[in-house]
Amino acid sequence: MENGTSRQGDDGVGETRPRWRFSRPSVGTGLTAAGSLSIRAVIGRLTSSIDPSSTRSVVHLAHGDPTASACFQTAPEAEDAVVDALRTREHNGYSRSSGEPHARSSVAEYLSRDLPYDLSPDDIYLTSGCVQAIEIMISALAQPGANILLPKPGFPLYEARTTFSNLEDRHFDLMPETGWEVDLESVKALADDNTVAIVIINPGNPCGSVYSHDHLAQIAETARELGILIIADEVYAHLAFGDRPFIPMGVFAKTAPVITLGSISKRWLVPGWRLGWIATCDPDGILKEAKVNQAIQSYANISTDPATFVQGAVPQIIANTKQEYFNKILGLLRNSSDLLFGKIKDIRGITCPHKPEGSMFVMVKLDLSCLDGFCDDIDFCCTLAKEESVLVMPGTALGMKNWARITFAIDLPSLEDSLERIKSFCDRHGKVEA
Amino acid sequence: MENGTSRQGDDGVGETRPRWRFSRPSVGTGLTAAGSLSIRAVIGRLTSSIDPSSTRSVVHLAHGDPTASACFQTAPEAEDAVVDALRTREHNGYSRSSGEPHARSSVAEYLSRDLPYDLSPDDIYLTSGCVQAIEIMISALAQPGANILLPKPGFPLYEARTTFSNLEDRHFDLMPETGWEVDLESVKALADDNTVAIVIINPGNPCGSVYSHDHLAQIAETARELGILIIADEVYAHLAFGDRPFIPMGVFAKTAPVITLGSISKRWLVPGWRLGWIATCDPDGILKEAKVNQAIQSYANISTDPATFVQGAVPQIIANTKQEYFNKILGLLRNSSDLLFGKIKDIRGITCPHKPEGSMFVMVKLDLSCLDGFCDDIDFCCTLAKEESVLVMPGTALGMKNWARITFAIDLPSLEDSLERIKSFCDRHGKVEA
Repeated sequence: MENGTSRQGDDGVGETRPRWRFSRPSVGTGLTAAGSLSIRAVIGRLTSSIDPSSTRSVVHLAHGDPTASACFQTAPEAEDAVVDALRTREHNGYSRSSGEPHARSSVAEYLSRDLPYDLSPDDIYLTSGCVQAIEIMISALAQPGANILLPKPGFPLYEARTTFSNLEDRHFDLMPETGWEVDLESVKALADDNTVAIVIINPGNPCGSVYSHDHLAQIAETARELGILIIADEVYAHLAFGDRPFIPMGVFAKTAPVITLGSISKRWLVPGWRLGWIATCDPDGILKEAKVNQAIQSYANISTDPATFVQGAVPQIIANTKQEYFNKILGLLRNSSDLLFGKIKDIRGITCPHKPEGSMFVMVKLDLSCLDGFCDDIDFCCTLAKEESVLVMPGTALGMKNWARITFAIDLPSLEDSLERIKSFCDRHGKVEA
Repeated sequence: MENGTSRQGDDGVGETRPRWRFSRPSVGTGLTAAGSLSIRAVIGRLTSSIDPSSTRSVVHLAHGDPTASACFQTAPEAEDAVVDALRTREHNGYSRSSGEPHARSSVAEYLSRDLPYDLSPDDIYLTSGCVQAIEIMISALAQPGANILLPKPGFPLYEARTTFSNLEDRHFDLMPETGWEVDLESVKALADDNTVAIVIINPGNPCGSVYSHDHLAQIAETARELGILIIADEVYAHLAFGDRPFIPMGVFAKTAPVITLGSISKRWLVPGWRLGWIATCDPDGILKEAKVNQAIQSYANISTDPATFVQGAVPQIIANTKQEYFNKILGLLRNSSDLLFGKIKDIRGITCPHKPEGSMFVMVKLDLSCLDGFCDDIDFCCTLAKEESVLVMPGTALGMKNWARITFAIDLPSLEDSLERIKSFCDRHGKVEA
């Protein structure tokens, strides 16, 4: 078989230069679309806008990784647990595909504390961060013709994975005027016979919302009415510092089956440890009967796992971390969100419709009519990166044009400094009033 | 929208019982096919065959995880490097999607030692073990109509991921009579205009082969002739203990572009640490031009990463591990493979056509005509698990019916004990000679 080659005389040695068969423009087209939807791709674009000649420090308010700030460090007990697990030399081998039994038991017990029934270790699938939990769920639910309901604004990894998996996504609105509650009428209008699930992110990324018991109950009733399962993204579980407590969606799993996604990344401030989970909250066995667990297991069988020794540390991480540590982190988030919400009020062209109560983010509205020369939020954010070395996430990346997402999970001096820079930026670009 | 519910009167309270829309038999069908192809699924089946009432220890010769044996422990320097990286508290945050820069540089330098050109850090994508490296490559190359050439026997994760990604796989033969070399004529017969790549596993899993310089050069020439890229699975790199040294496929990347998959899992005996890589060996820029790198990056953007602090440890792991450690492990593998090869000769019904020279495995042929009552290799392996608590991998799972894969990466007493059990099993099931 030699028809893959073509002779080229111009190199003087008569060497055969192959026609490489993988050199086709279609390589990675759908994948590229998915990859470009990622937070990472947008952050890459923002970062490349930064003026390299600027001497000012870059302040990163665009993603949820507070570990760069000295005050947002994990509990020493958690770090010790990982070292201890590694030093036993008992966790260097391959993990089982759903996770190590002790770690699964420990997560089941941890989540069950806040539920009216007990999860079993078999309900828990350990994942390499919540990123892989999302990958597994979208892969397990994707099938020809199916669709899934996603929040707008939301977390773009869902759109990236649905695009990659050919699972149609349909977007329902979160309503800023009611604390970013789900517009249940828009949910009902979107769903049809091919809808398999609705994704609820609570505490909310990107909105900083924390849903009430009543609203969660309404969501569950709506899911029941529509006959769809709820994917409860609770990666920010327990990071609620306002008046409302965090209530897991799993509380309502008798109404509609719930699959909870979580991790230690946010509450323990260790996103780089890559330890998350999928929990099937299925007290009536509906998911099992529908073979959803089997689909999750099948995908887990052919994908990677969290590091075994980090899994080995999970029981100690959960058992040993003190309440004072969690309280300290909540206090820091409360203070920094207060600062952000107060300062934003003085910045022309930016408004914040709802004071954040949880997670690490807030959505702010850009009133470009007060500002000069920005065509949209991406333009605003890239110019801000260029002129002020401050990164905030353009709302377009999250489904909300001319909004922006700002994290407050950063030390107060840096937050204050960056808000001063944003204020001076907006003042400088403010329209001269008539 | 209420047509998703149907009233059921038989519960006495007139409660609405939903028709759950995700309860469809098609859920996960293709996925289930992929998941059932995994090593993990087969091991699950073997494990469930073990007689729970047996008091004998279970000897696990079915997969490549030697960490259960006290003699196969990682280098103390490697363990210290991970602890040190964790204790700095500088590696708790999210990683960049291609991996941390220092770790990428370090892997580039490590691989370049054995190449006639230098890899750049941009050629390296760090992955969560070689499992994720395979996932990324198959996802990046899959496109409608394309096909990929896989070895038979091989590593079933390739088949699982191609099935999941709808990438057609075609199988070329490895030839036991020539040390499991690639049957290049069968490769040429299989390839067509839609073939994008060939996968070469060297040192060989499952065959224990180590390819010569000449054979690797011939493979590269064949790939060039066909215009396809080579995926060089070198997860067992440097684990060559016979007469032939390990030579990386990347040496021949001027002939045909090579994408090398590797990890620290095997050479450092830490499969649970989940640190692998993809290296684009592309001295002529052919892969870049074909946007293969872009496809890899796109998939990396929407998938998980190895733990950041394990990445942080990579430069020290590579720099500090002593040659004596590597020599010790090679000595252990040489001794145990010698023992296995010698003992197999005395077992009726099992033959080993080629003495292992590398990796941790050997393929043995089952002559079921000498044995009584086994319909195939799966039956043989499940009955062996049941009667002797010894697990070996049925060849069917690797594409070779009535063969089996046995690992020798286990301490000598356990290996000897398990071979005695296999011998007594085969004696017991031997046909009475006429």
